[in-house]
Amino acid sequence: MVLVTTLNKLQHVLQSTNTDAVLLQSQSNVFYATGFNANPHERLIGVFIFKDHEPILICPSMEVNQISDVFKGEIIGYKDTQNPWDLLKERLQDVQLSSIALEGGISWSRYRSLSALYPDASYTEFDATLQQLRQVKSDEEITIMREACKLADLGVQIGIDALRTGVTETEVIAHIEHQLKTHGVRAMSFSTLVLFGEKAGDPHGNPGDRKLQPGDAVLFDLGVIHKGYCSDISRTVFYGHASEEQTNIYTTVLEAQQKALEHSAPGRALKELDILARTHIAEAGYGDFFPHRLGHGLGIDVHEAPYVTETNEQVLEPGFTFTIEPGIYVPNKAGVRIEDDVLVTESGYETLTSFTKELTVVKERV
Amino acid sequence: MVLVTTLNKLQHVLQSTNTDAVLLQSQSNVFYATGFNANPHERLIGVFIFKDHEPILICPSMEVNQISDVFKGEIIGYKDTQNPWDLLKERLQDVQLSSIALEGGISWSRYRSLSALYPDASYTEFDATLQQLRQVKSDEEITIMREACKLADLGVQIGIDALRTGVTETEVIAHIEHQLKTHGVRAMSFSTLVLFGEKAGDPHGNPGDRKLQPGDAVLFDLGVIHKGYCSDISRTVFYGHASEEQTNIYTTVLEAQQKALEHSAPGRALKELDILARTHIAEAGYGDFFPHRLGHGLGIDVHEAPYVTETNEQVLEPGFTFTIEPGIYVPNKAGVRIEDDVLVTESGYETLTSFTKELTVVKERV
Repeated sequence: MVLVTTLNKLQHVLQSTNTDAVLLQSQSNVFYATGFNANPHERLIGVFIFKDHEPILICPSMEVNQISDVFKGEIIGYKDTQNPWDLLKERLQDVQLSSIALEGGISWSRYRSLSALYPDASYTEFDATLQQLRQVKSDEEITIMREACKLADLGVQIGIDALRTGVTETEVIAHIEHQLKTHGVRAMSFSTLVLFGEKAGDPHGNPGDRKLQPGDAVLFDLGVIHKGYCSDISRTVFYGHASEEQTNIYTTVLEAQQKALEHSAPGRALKELDILARTHIAEAGYGDFFPHRLGHGLGIDVHEAPYVTETNEQVLEPGFTFTIEPGIYVPNKAGVRIEDDVLVTESGYETLTSFTKELTVVKERV
Repeated sequence: MVLVTTLNKLQHVLQSTNTDAVLLQSQSNVFYATGFNANPHERLIGVFIFKDHEPILICPSMEVNQISDVFKGEIIGYKDTQNPWDLLKERLQDVQLSSIALEGGISWSRYRSLSALYPDASYTEFDATLQQLRQVKSDEEITIMREACKLADLGVQIGIDALRTGVTETEVIAHIEHQLKTHGVRAMSFSTLVLFGEKAGDPHGNPGDRKLQPGDAVLFDLGVIHKGYCSDISRTVFYGHASEEQTNIYTTVLEAQQKALEHSAPGRALKELDILARTHIAEAGYGDFFPHRLGHGLGIDVHEAPYVTETNEQVLEPGFTFTIEPGIYVPNKAGVRIEDDVLVTESGYETLTSFTKELTVVKERV
């Protein structure tokens, strides 16, 4: 059902832009187009969608069974000893194509293999079109993302429950991921972050054997992949007690996020959200300590359009899903990030992640 | 130390091939060249290595601190609101380049950005050169891979210890990954596979809620990333009891692997190993049930050169590390795969994974 709809959508785009064909071969775009989700590593899984013909999918022989469950069109399987481009040359010899759209991310070498088959064709980037389609989530996709975000909320709760004096960052991560797996989570959407105290002061710090001590801030950043869709949440809590500066930083970040959330509505520009949050943090005197964009779209990919940056003039539309995640990182000292996954609705916004953002001080445990 | 050596190696290649520069921008090649290992998602982290100048690395501003710990050359940081190619255009305006080498995997859009800066340069693929360098592991790399393989062995033991009647595939996976994380493993090298009974009959089966029953084969396929290097092991055991056919399949796979191992030595062609194992399986009547290549190289990537296929005439050299993983998969019935990570030595081979391959029947537990 999803499959048919998406393939039709894509074919309509080809017809309206008078493009003969598009080749999709990234894991996420193949999943978006066909419903088949697997990482073929260095092997090619590609789907050709044509303006005037039925689509053709090419994949390793050993994937054919699974793909045919979801993709009902023509499938070409190739063995590890065969060059898929030789099979494509044979299959496509009578298919004339003069304009071909590609993912910007397709490898240079695959581009060269394809352009050897169609040396006179014009090649255009399809990314903007895919972004426009993928960034507006369907009700079906939103339902799945709600479930993914509930599992992210659960991950934070599990992490907080695991805090005790002397526990290491790595131990808390192991506990979170183990518990989530017993709840059926097959994969995290990125490597889980748990950072204590001064470690949280590095926006890209690496978890390790740092032991939890009273007075530490604890930064969680995690998400799951659920039915092919990603969630991504950050929360920061304090263990034992919170200093005045920690409280001040936390409140500033929370206010910055709240300002951006309140302006999340159809018609607003994405850059407005970033600027609102950034200005609030700067006015509080922490302008030098917020080095990254306010947020990023998420869906099949954990980072996808739309991006919430100072310069992105793109206007919000109902169905957009993205993160709002301001942070303040004082090197070797303290770090706070608060991140929610946001859905733009007809009238405004809704946060799909819903773990509490009230300043939380976790009681010391041994 | 690694850093200097590798960058020097690469610069010498440029000098000997009279290539002005190479741009490396895949996570694994940047790690190989600089010792910095991070997934920048859609952001560019690229290192330009020049025939006649010091290298230049470009990365997001927020990565500069961490990268400068390992990379001592010039670093250009860019903000999320800046286009890295604009900064490169400015920095490289006085740098004349007429021949540029690229990863075949570089995206078509990055290729177009670079070729806009050097429209008259000739562009060549650097992959074969990188493969030749990376496929021969240094003593330092081999030491790390030994440790990675020990952790893979441990993962299998943990999985076997977790088998009990009624446990699900997913539960065993969660237990393995949790235990490994408490041993300091930050990431698996791929999504852990545990398959029971008929589920193991699909070479790419997906673990789920299938409950373990006496008489099931249990296929484990797992590996870890340790200090940036991958391990990858498969073992198949039987729960409660093994049928005559299961025993026969197991013995056939083990013999096929043993034949390939015994011929792993400098001077042999990789295809010989695949053909030996494939022929043995075919002669036992299971030729239709071994659909994949015998193995793949591994190191920084879990799949890299050299590939052990029927057609790869490349000759083994000391320092090569690859998997030998024959399998027999009878759809909806039974599957057996036995996989070791192999190091080619001066005189022959050594298996870096060392978990027992003796046919193992795990006692029923409740």
